[in-house]
Amino acid sequence: MKVLALDTSNRPLTVAILDDDRVLATESTTVHQKHAEYLLPIIDELFQKVGMKPKDLQRVVVANGPGSYTGIRIATATAKTLAYTLGIDLVSVSSLLTLALNVQLEGSLVMPIFDARNNNVFTGLYKIENGMPKAIINDQHTDFDKWLSLVGSVDSNIYAVGETENFLDKLSENYGDNLKLLDQFDNLPQAAKLGIYGQKQAPIKDIHSFVPNYLRLTKAEADWKKNNPEEEETSYVEKFD
Amino acid sequence: MKVLALDTSNRPLTVAILDDDRVLATESTTVHQKHAEYLLPIIDELFQKVGMKPKDLQRVVVANGPGSYTGIRIATATAKTLAYTLGIDLVSVSSLLTLALNVQLEGSLVMPIFDARNNNVFTGLYKIENGMPKAIINDQHTDFDKWLSLVGSVDSNIYAVGETENFLDKLSENYGDNLKLLDQFDNLPQAAKLGIYGQKQAPIKDIHSFVPNYLRLTKAEADWKKNNPEEEETSYVEKFD
Repeated sequence: MKVLALDTSNRPLTVAILDDDRVLATESTTVHQKHAEYLLPIIDELFQKVGMKPKDLQRVVVANGPGSYTGIRIATATAKTLAYTLGIDLVSVSSLLTLALNVQLEGSLVMPIFDARNNNVFTGLYKIENGMPKAIINDQHTDFDKWLSLVGSVDSNIYAVGETENFLDKLSENYGDNLKLLDQFDNLPQAAKLGIYGQKQAPIKDIHSFVPNYLRLTKAEADWKKNNPEEEETSYVEKFD
Repeated sequence: MKVLALDTSNRPLTVAILDDDRVLATESTTVHQKHAEYLLPIIDELFQKVGMKPKDLQRVVVANGPGSYTGIRIATATAKTLAYTLGIDLVSVSSLLTLALNVQLEGSLVMPIFDARNNNVFTGLYKIENGMPKAIINDQHTDFDKWLSLVGSVDSNIYAVGETENFLDKLSENYGDNLKLLDQFDNLPQAAKLGIYGQKQAPIKDIHSFVPNYLRLTKAEADWKKNNPEEEETSYVEKFD
């Protein structure tokens, strides 16, 4: 199966083209957040390098958030449009699970972290089972201290992955020797791993209804909900995005 | 420290630009072996993407073999020329150690493998100590069965990394549950990890005398040695390369 995988949900931009689990080409950058400007040219470059065209694809795998609104929107809009245009499968994977794919040790707990500023994080708790991350506590947008209370103590290895920098003291205090950290490469999402994982997941049934998973309201959404209390069931994103 | 890292010693081509341990951009492909044609354009592309120029570099880190003669020669010639021209440090790292960098678990043994055909391999034995691979048995070009006898039995986790495909049965038979394997992304060398590692290593003192580590003779070298038995001490590479 020929697969394009992409994640621009946070600062890193990562793209990969795979043939089954063989990584044909992959590129990642962390230097800018102009994902809208760079994503399509990088995809095009990679296609040229591997001697493929978009029509050769059988599947697109995208990290669908949480993360930056703009970043998530670019990745999901690009993936959705490609899948729709080419008439191929679209698979959507949590951006936090994507980070958790970087941990190798079977049985470990994994806490992927995106720093959402002011002691807030996007995070979740996963466990590596049969080589794949399984969600133990759902992805959420939360205060980091509240999150640590929710997770409680652990009696196994726990890997903190991603934007851990501002939380290292608290992590170390809470988990002591059980805390495991990775190098700065393994703290980045890898589209290649996303592509390997996404081949084993069920595709989205109705591509048109696919929306990103922001896990928090934008200011526009919050304002809209406030002004439209009667339309509780309809999301702002579905209406206007 | 701004670092360029590269490895083209086997089929994969991998390049990264780092600022200390922060990965600014990295690209890897496995689809062709025209490394001579693709390496410099990819380096140039990455420089443009991160908004840097070669003169911004402080160090070049290169995987210096073993692997394919041509591949090693391209990477080392490119790295040597860049370091010489820019007047900056050059660090050379075993291509097998580079693969071993992909293993996360402290205390594990790591057996990186390049398939040299006909049951021959380039391999070595490493142990992850303080997060870094330390050589336990030197890199060598050897028959795989002889190699397994040399390593003997192990009583800890042993990760087989790289081109393991043709050796999985024997590995599994020898090491049973101690054998650990990685996904097809972690079986590829990562210039980003090479760059992180290479910043902590001593640079080569005399760039001009730096030669690749082929670990076996080319046919030309073997013929030359045969015809020049009296010049045992002078290598073919030093004379003609």
